[in-house]
Amino acid sequence: MATIKQVALEAGLSKSTVSRFIAQNGYVSDEARKKIEEAIKKLNFTPNLSAQSLKTKKNQLVGLLLPDISNPFFPMLAKGAEEFLKEKGYRVMLGNIGENHQSEHDYLKVLLQSNAAGIISTHDFKEEFPDLDIPSVIVDRVGHKSNYGVFSDNESGGRLAAKVIVEAGAKNVAVVSGPLNATNINNRFKASIAYLKEKKVDFKALYSQSYDFEEIQKEAREVLANKENFDSIIAPSDIHAMAYIHEIHRLDKKIPEEIQIIGYDDIQMSQFIYPALSTIHQSAYQMGLEAAQLIYKIATDQPIEKSKIELPVHYVARETIRQKGKE
Amino acid sequence: MATIKQVALEAGLSKSTVSRFIAQNGYVSDEARKKIEEAIKKLNFTPNLSAQSLKTKKNQLVGLLLPDISNPFFPMLAKGAEEFLKEKGYRVMLGNIGENHQSEHDYLKVLLQSNAAGIISTHDFKEEFPDLDIPSVIVDRVGHKSNYGVFSDNESGGRLAAKVIVEAGAKNVAVVSGPLNATNINNRFKASIAYLKEKKVDFKALYSQSYDFEEIQKEAREVLANKENFDSIIAPSDIHAMAYIHEIHRLDKKIPEEIQIIGYDDIQMSQFIYPALSTIHQSAYQMGLEAAQLIYKIATDQPIEKSKIELPVHYVARETIRQKGKE
Repeated sequence: MATIKQVALEAGLSKSTVSRFIAQNGYVSDEARKKIEEAIKKLNFTPNLSAQSLKTKKNQLVGLLLPDISNPFFPMLAKGAEEFLKEKGYRVMLGNIGENHQSEHDYLKVLLQSNAAGIISTHDFKEEFPDLDIPSVIVDRVGHKSNYGVFSDNESGGRLAAKVIVEAGAKNVAVVSGPLNATNINNRFKASIAYLKEKKVDFKALYSQSYDFEEIQKEAREVLANKENFDSIIAPSDIHAMAYIHEIHRLDKKIPEEIQIIGYDDIQMSQFIYPALSTIHQSAYQMGLEAAQLIYKIATDQPIEKSKIELPVHYVARETIRQKGKE
Repeated sequence: MATIKQVALEAGLSKSTVSRFIAQNGYVSDEARKKIEEAIKKLNFTPNLSAQSLKTKKNQLVGLLLPDISNPFFPMLAKGAEEFLKEKGYRVMLGNIGENHQSEHDYLKVLLQSNAAGIISTHDFKEEFPDLDIPSVIVDRVGHKSNYGVFSDNESGGRLAAKVIVEAGAKNVAVVSGPLNATNINNRFKASIAYLKEKKVDFKALYSQSYDFEEIQKEAREVLANKENFDSIIAPSDIHAMAYIHEIHRLDKKIPEEIQIIGYDDIQMSQFIYPALSTIHQSAYQMGLEAAQLIYKIATDQPIEKSKIELPVHYVARETIRQKGKE
């Protein structure tokens, strides 16, 4: 590949003139410009964007590390982050770290190498790499040690899901936990169980191993095949609820008359499935947006009023929970 | 921030020993190791991963540039690419270039700077940057000039959509085109229209400006509000079809009795909405997988049998198209 030196030789100009031209940094006469363009064309010279970019300290890149983009919750979170950061001149690059964040280290390397301005992640990598000098905000799965985080009020959400289902007449509830070890998400599950205990409603705790739709379908098939005869299900996500609904249809049981089910997240899809899913709404878009604002403030040294932001949740009544007075 | 020189001074060792230790490259005695670790801790030294990583030519990163991850077609494509590349030790980083690929240049910069092994994109950036020396495969929206590409048989797909709807008794069809300028996707739309003309079925061509669900809902509302009285709709994507279905429900019209509609893509959601969407299936997962195999072959200098891969499509009958003999 041709070098700047060769281009300079070909153009009959100094290397620094060619450099100024390529970096668009400083004066280059029209005549020189023309010569350089000809030389570049002749030698098929490609400027090394890499070397150029490294001169600017930050390249306006923010990394977004998420566990699963096939769950629409996360693309919506990405959208919230991206729309804010785009306004501010930043680009977002998305990495899929999986539920076990096994590829996290590789992504961190790439982002540091690209001088990223910050990282928004569902996993607090600073626990493992405390010395990494890069602004970071944890979303959704915020731990006690995280410095900056945006998350939903999972405790209220878990309690609310149980309250809704109990008030609709639940007698025997399957409470499904997602495959997570993040404290605050487990709080959701624990809060549901605490409420059911308070109200002395029979329940069984079940543990899902996956967020993959087909995997969950298999789990749902097993749960529904045994003789427990649940009349209600509290699902850890709308994706889980949808997989269960699919299997309940297969068994020709009526929703919500024979089995009622409540989801969590309120992804867009929830309003279009049949029956439309009753669920606990948490705003993925808002979560992404707040995280983006936070990372922007950290990256640009602005004052931060709140380093941990808890977003409210609410119940969205649709068709999978029995209506009061209709039983 | 502390430098390697300061660490060497603190540890009472040469700079090159410290370098070897940090880069994990060459022999360092246990005693030296201990001293360096203490010095690093004391000085709170952070190794510059950036400088280190640049030493290896390729960092096993593949960039995936997509127009919209809120359309589940693209996360599924990403999944196909990612699962193959992960096996081969590569990481995939996703960038959202939008329908107008306005942020493409910034992503290219980041990927070149990170010495990415290759780029899979829905937009052929080599038309604008012909000298960029990086393996690239175009997916979905492959143009005539693209060297490597994976795409669906859009012409057959477009024709098939029209055939299905005509055989189900369509008399007055709205054919909706997506907001694309990619030749091969337009071929789909053109093939539908060619078939309707052949069969002398009345139709009107409509042009959608968006892939955003809410935007499409607005368009659908306008289309359905005027007095055309379409009895059939050929949608450019399942997302479009779902937005139309939503608006048709709002008007209390029966699907498929009063209006039938066919989608395109067969995203997972299509089977869960009400009524379940009849659609043309194209495999996003397969598209991502084939593109990943191709980029891997290019990046590792393996022989390539086929530089452009066309994937077959087929019709999936569900509930939004009238059944023959049921009219």
